[in-house]
Amino acid sequence: MSSTSTTPPSTTPLSSTPRSSLGRLAERGRTDRADLYDVLDAGIVCHLGIVLDGAPVVLPTGYGRVDDTLYLHGSTGASTLRGAATGLPVCVTVTHVDGVVYARSVFHFSMNYRSAVVHGTARLVSDEDERMAGLEALVEQLAPGSWSHARLPDRKELAATSVLALDLAEASVKVRNGPPGDDDSDIANTAYWAGVLPVRTVFGDAEPAPDLIPGTPATPDHVRTRPPR
Amino acid sequence: MSSTSTTPPSTTPLSSTPRSSLGRLAERGRTDRADLYDVLDAGIVCHLGIVLDGAPVVLPTGYGRVDDTLYLHGSTGASTLRGAATGLPVCVTVTHVDGVVYARSVFHFSMNYRSAVVHGTARLVSDEDERMAGLEALVEQLAPGSWSHARLPDRKELAATSVLALDLAEASVKVRNGPPGDDDSDIANTAYWAGVLPVRTVFGDAEPAPDLIPGTPATPDHVRTRPPR
Repeated sequence: MSSTSTTPPSTTPLSSTPRSSLGRLAERGRTDRADLYDVLDAGIVCHLGIVLDGAPVVLPTGYGRVDDTLYLHGSTGASTLRGAATGLPVCVTVTHVDGVVYARSVFHFSMNYRSAVVHGTARLVSDEDERMAGLEALVEQLAPGSWSHARLPDRKELAATSVLALDLAEASVKVRNGPPGDDDSDIANTAYWAGVLPVRTVFGDAEPAPDLIPGTPATPDHVRTRPPR
Repeated sequence: MSSTSTTPPSTTPLSSTPRSSLGRLAERGRTDRADLYDVLDAGIVCHLGIVLDGAPVVLPTGYGRVDDTLYLHGSTGASTLRGAATGLPVCVTVTHVDGVVYARSVFHFSMNYRSAVVHGTARLVSDEDERMAGLEALVEQLAPGSWSHARLPDRKELAATSVLALDLAEASVKVRNGPPGDDDSDIANTAYWAGVLPVRTVFGDAEPAPDLIPGTPATPDHVRTRPPR
């Protein structure tokens, strides 16, 4: 199966601990930090894993990145964040599905995708400047251009918000792209079509809030012309 | 914030254990089994969480559903599947991002989404009929219509494939939809636009495999006209 890199190498490799080293299909692995940034920066949602009472819990949530730190946030009352904030290990995974791979054989059906898996221990951010920088990164990841187009949080809102930081020290990146990888005997058989159906995430037309009052600006450019991820 | 149900109630409610009962924003919860099916059936990828050496690991993978059983599969050599197959607790989460919610205040930025979180202990499927049914569900979830348009697995391929089953007994469903939920004082302010940018997953034009040989059928309808999720 094809899996060619699309980003130029940078100078800082990703770490390679046992759990961040790929076992199966290691040829799909990326070891460059720039690939990690690319996958993270293209996402809207991550899946945060923590362990509660010995069992895994996986929840979707927003995130933001500043250099080699990933920020998460939530209500001070959220149990998952409370768990992560007490120094428990976490896993944050971001996945983009890029295509459905139709093979001639059921066995070789697959997905084209890019995924990043980050392992670590989250740190509850207490420094007010870092908290604001983390929240800005979160808002800009979800809605680029919005931090300067919205009312910033007041003291009460800040008090209700936990910000967690996760170092991007231990991570793995995996990419599959290209056509199906059927066996030669199946390729020689004309019975079945094979190929890739691309999957894309696109934005529709902006829907202004029904309670906008007269005098509010029209849909701003950073929303109206937001490029697809 | 708006969160109205879009599916009619069925007769079997979802379970309500402490970990599958929503804490925060419980008004976003869905307690109907039909809502769980809707979220699962609309997905391509799930995020599988397991615990390895006390730490969470979250990996993207395909899945399929038959009634109240979710099927996962992978290589017999995959360490995550080995873990899940030994009777460890797992968490499977499927998330659809439906929109980016631009609020007047940073605090109320949000996502419209549908998510399902399933808790349980996976079972390694050994019955050959159930294994094939699970694999069919997996292929049909990823690529509807394909099970009858591809070579079915042979004995060697089946031996290399683990199939895991997870009962859909303990699960929660959460949905956010509708416009931003700004405070009244911000709604009265005309400084900032607010609204929703819809997010959609669409399929591009099918890309036939470069090694298709003459005589192979053209791109079949179940690929060419696959409706968006």
